[in-house]
Amino acid sequence: MIKKNLLLTPGPTPVPSEVLLSMARPAIHHRTPQFMAIFKEMNENLKYVFQTKHDVFTFACSGTGAMEATVANLLSGGDTAICVQAGKFGERWGEICKAYGITAVIIDVEWGDAVTPEQIKKALDQHKNAKAVFTTLCETSTGAGIDLKAIADVLRPRAAVLVTDAISALGGMELRTDEWGVDVVVSGSQKGLMIPPGLGFCSISPKAWQLVEQSKSPRYYFDFRAAKAALDKTDTPYTPAVSLCIALNEALKMLRQETLEQAWARQRRLCEAIRAAMLALGLKLYAKKPAEVVTAVCVPQGVDGEKLVKIMRDDYGITIAGGQEQLKGKIFRFASLGFVNEFDIMTGISCLEIVLAKLGYTFTAGAGVGAAQKIFAA
Amino acid sequence: MIKKNLLLTPGPTPVPSEVLLSMARPAIHHRTPQFMAIFKEMNENLKYVFQTKHDVFTFACSGTGAMEATVANLLSGGDTAICVQAGKFGERWGEICKAYGITAVIIDVEWGDAVTPEQIKKALDQHKNAKAVFTTLCETSTGAGIDLKAIADVLRPRAAVLVTDAISALGGMELRTDEWGVDVVVSGSQKGLMIPPGLGFCSISPKAWQLVEQSKSPRYYFDFRAAKAALDKTDTPYTPAVSLCIALNEALKMLRQETLEQAWARQRRLCEAIRAAMLALGLKLYAKKPAEVVTAVCVPQGVDGEKLVKIMRDDYGITIAGGQEQLKGKIFRFASLGFVNEFDIMTGISCLEIVLAKLGYTFTAGAGVGAAQKIFAA
Repeated sequence: MIKKNLLLTPGPTPVPSEVLLSMARPAIHHRTPQFMAIFKEMNENLKYVFQTKHDVFTFACSGTGAMEATVANLLSGGDTAICVQAGKFGERWGEICKAYGITAVIIDVEWGDAVTPEQIKKALDQHKNAKAVFTTLCETSTGAGIDLKAIADVLRPRAAVLVTDAISALGGMELRTDEWGVDVVVSGSQKGLMIPPGLGFCSISPKAWQLVEQSKSPRYYFDFRAAKAALDKTDTPYTPAVSLCIALNEALKMLRQETLEQAWARQRRLCEAIRAAMLALGLKLYAKKPAEVVTAVCVPQGVDGEKLVKIMRDDYGITIAGGQEQLKGKIFRFASLGFVNEFDIMTGISCLEIVLAKLGYTFTAGAGVGAAQKIFAA
Repeated sequence: MIKKNLLLTPGPTPVPSEVLLSMARPAIHHRTPQFMAIFKEMNENLKYVFQTKHDVFTFACSGTGAMEATVANLLSGGDTAICVQAGKFGERWGEICKAYGITAVIIDVEWGDAVTPEQIKKALDQHKNAKAVFTTLCETSTGAGIDLKAIADVLRPRAAVLVTDAISALGGMELRTDEWGVDVVVSGSQKGLMIPPGLGFCSISPKAWQLVEQSKSPRYYFDFRAAKAALDKTDTPYTPAVSLCIALNEALKMLRQETLEQAWARQRRLCEAIRAAMLALGLKLYAKKPAEVVTAVCVPQGVDGEKLVKIMRDDYGITIAGGQEQLKGKIFRFASLGFVNEFDIMTGISCLEIVLAKLGYTFTAGAGVGAAQKIFAA
């Protein structure tokens, strides 16, 4: 078999050829009318995808850089924040707060489970001085999604701001930033936005902006004040990642053409098909409330989970993700994120079936693909 | 005339087509043997270009991000550092120190001039508690270069570490990190390294590493300790900018094939030709000791400097840089940085001559190009 590589991981995700080729255009300078026109359009398209009329800042960094930028710009050493910890990426909020001398009140949620609005409410009642609540819309390490809309309802009448890590969720899971009242949405470029890694984003509400003006945390490159002053002039304080910005604008134009609602519906349908396929194969889902961009599946007894991922990737070219930290070898994560369609999912399920059979797992060949087809036909 | 765009700016610089096309390859995942092999080779090639056997950390960020990373990892609030300020980029060291509560002793050098080793020595004698000296190898805003080797000699017997911003210098100006004893070299991807902006770099000596372990400054994304722990396993702590790393490796292979010594010699010759051309046109150089990657030239009386740059770019496709801040409209900056050869320089000079004539400046047509040819023929 000739190998055709397919990324079904929760980032990086497949980049459309049109977008890849836009990065091969000759280099242009960033302080030119030529780049300014692209940057302006990109920022307007970002506001659409973030569903906000407020600023969205773009930094050359990974998603983690944008998370740190948010913490440093909102809070100062000695402040208190509530951090939801339901997986590896939720833990990161607590780690960043700690690095900045911020007291992190941890809501410890069992991996695979999702925080409830009631837990957030209780934590806020117990810690009335908390200035921010840090959440993870899709906890990529466990495949669990949270009810962000209901959490936003809890935060609305209170002084604390609501921050969400939507790094793997943006462009895939429903997220209505302004309408729901999410103060800061953090994201990255290599997931639902369909371009390579290297850009991080932060949207910011007027309520959160008040904290930016108060923060005493040291910051320079990630300073939202400098970013805002530049953005007001369709500029960046420091050299932007020009080729990635060009690619992003191309990808956002595609997403805009599909419409965000359609992209959300596509992800919902793809994940529904993946879940149906896994159950048809006799496999168990890991997350209690699965997010609609990545599906975590328990590795069945007797199968080597790390080998499964490795054979799919190295022998067949189909890349899914294994488990991280305590879930290493125990789950695999099958993502539909980004530029992925029904046939990609059926290819991924087919490959999974072939490799599961090789590893001695018993099931009816084609059962997974068949279950997915039924969902797609509905 | 059909426009063929040519970047003769001190970054971004022209990206070779082979490198551009490497960014159009299908996306790959970063936690795979496939990426690991590229990343390993890239890191070895970086050590060659940085002329160090120690670690070089790569971050998804602009050069400014790598500058901030250096300050935050070496120093803590209350520490003292000496910052050489001879232009816009030297000023940035002082600004970053200030943001981190570090006392910056400023050596204020007139714009266009270069700091002397004696000035550094005097400052160190007066501020024996200074933990670091921050310099700029090529001050991109003025086109002046410093004698870093002689400055390193001053620092060698002392406790303070020597940091240099080689963002526009690396790969163009002679820089022997380990041999001279430069503790931290900061750079970026979009200059001598011939790829688009989006990657920042920091090399680190064992002497500087001691400070990293002492620093109490808040840091997470840019934490050298996390970067080192990952690099030891040919990995990155957070998602790397995959497509830029692939491009970088391609560009570094080209630079390695040319050899660094040849690249330095090429830049020296190109800058010599540019200087000869400017003098032949009756123009004055701005920097007292010009750096050998970018040449700053005084705009002649009666010519509108901003218009000159604009017409060259918008009417002819040749992009040079204007002056920044107090030098706006007063100088233009003609760079040879990166993937630039003799004919590119003669194209740039030809365009400059055409536009100078249009703007009413008097000189013998072809005098600049002729002077350059003589240098190239020598």
